[in-house]
Amino acid sequence: MSLPAGATRVPVPAGTEVLAEEVPVALVYDGATQAVMMATPADLEDFVLGFALAEGLIDSPSELIRTEIVAQPRGIEARAWLAAPAGARFAARRRAMAGPVGCGLCGLDSLEQALRQLPARPMRAAPGPAQAARALDDLRAAQALQDATRAVHAAGFWTEAGGLISLREDVGRHNALDKLAGALARAGIATEGGAVVMTSRLSVDLVQKAATLGATALISPSAPTALAVAEAGAAGLALIARGRDGFTRYTGPAGAEESAA
Amino acid sequence: MSLPAGATRVPVPAGTEVLAEEVPVALVYDGATQAVMMATPADLEDFVLGFALAEGLIDSPSELIRTEIVAQPRGIEARAWLAAPAGARFAARRRAMAGPVGCGLCGLDSLEQALRQLPARPMRAAPGPAQAARALDDLRAAQALQDATRAVHAAGFWTEAGGLISLREDVGRHNALDKLAGALARAGIATEGGAVVMTSRLSVDLVQKAATLGATALISPSAPTALAVAEAGAAGLALIARGRDGFTRYTGPAGAEESAA
Repeated sequence: MSLPAGATRVPVPAGTEVLAEEVPVALVYDGATQAVMMATPADLEDFVLGFALAEGLIDSPSELIRTEIVAQPRGIEARAWLAAPAGARFAARRRAMAGPVGCGLCGLDSLEQALRQLPARPMRAAPGPAQAARALDDLRAAQALQDATRAVHAAGFWTEAGGLISLREDVGRHNALDKLAGALARAGIATEGGAVVMTSRLSVDLVQKAATLGATALISPSAPTALAVAEAGAAGLALIARGRDGFTRYTGPAGAEESAA
Repeated sequence: MSLPAGATRVPVPAGTEVLAEEVPVALVYDGATQAVMMATPADLEDFVLGFALAEGLIDSPSELIRTEIVAQPRGIEARAWLAAPAGARFAARRRAMAGPVGCGLCGLDSLEQALRQLPARPMRAAPGPAQAARALDDLRAAQALQDATRAVHAAGFWTEAGGLISLREDVGRHNALDKLAGALARAGIATEGGAVVMTSRLSVDLVQKAATLGATALISPSAPTALAVAEAGAAGLALIARGRDGFTRYTGPAGAEESAA
């Protein structure tokens, strides 16, 4: 049986089993490592692009001029080079950074930097509960790596008209969403009017990534945190998740839930 | 109704709902921020101690001489002070660190540092499938914050003789396990012969934390990654997770699964 990318056959006491691969991936821009993530070694060109977009290193996919995926003894380097203006901005930002965390900043400064401020946006039309359930069903039906390994999350992009447009899987839910952002950008898919669908619970970092990506809604099978609701409300992102009594809309004007049903 | 710590009532379009709190928590040792985590604001004394143990800043709870939890406008500082030898070691380590990631190290150096080497240990006696199922049932029955919010993970410590000894919950699964390590250390509970039980899938970082904590086994309702199995095998940690056909032992000698049933 051929395995999907990111799956591997491993000896276990009772024989062998197909499990998800997990490797250190260094995200390297213009020769400088920006982060090392434990990630699924698949779709890494999407990852290095999507991370740059999600973190604001670049504003548009055209600012990333080349990528290179290099296997190393202890992991994988996903290298990318930035176009001149973005590269200069990135270099200046690195010089200005005493170091984000773990580098001696006092707690107060670090807390200030923990939450990136999202631009305020009005809430737009968003899927209702029935569509949210359909989006999650569509996502579940397409999780090839999860079917093989039962150890990975998925992030999908879904529209009412087109169904599930794109999907990426990873052992890390943030990585799955970064890969999705990169895949959409590479394919030139417009995100306005579409929803991000996640298999995971909704913490605030996923709200920030989905809003930065330009999605209209974020859908999940699990409840959001209070901070995720607050940030999504301010950023005009509709949060729809499975509540105690079926799918619930967590952001938007009072009554939005009913009108969307 | 009184809410558990870490839960809050939030307005949503259809009325109000109880959701999990999520705030930036700066972990500050001897005045220097080591990390900022998005976390559930409960059991933070356990968190700041457990993180120091899991990351090897200290070797024993007695090396952490004082903790202080300080609310700030943008989050919470969890401050701790280290006893003289540990404090000097920590200061030297910080000076030697050019910065762990995001600080200009080349990808190769960053990959080398991504996976801490665990001491090699022999595999010890561990719970079998029936006990693993019981441990997970015991954990599920005690997740008060999850019952209230449906958005948090849990880490528990379980023994055959004592059942569920301790449990901590957090929006981050790593945080839940760090809090558990701190809670066990504060209570002086010996971890040899006991199992860590998680609600989450098993990536390699959880294996590293559970092994550092000294547990004999790590139990989960979801499959481990291939790297988690490799690292757990080398560190003598029994991995038991729900496989395709019920609970499966993923590490140990061939036949370990049968003999443990």
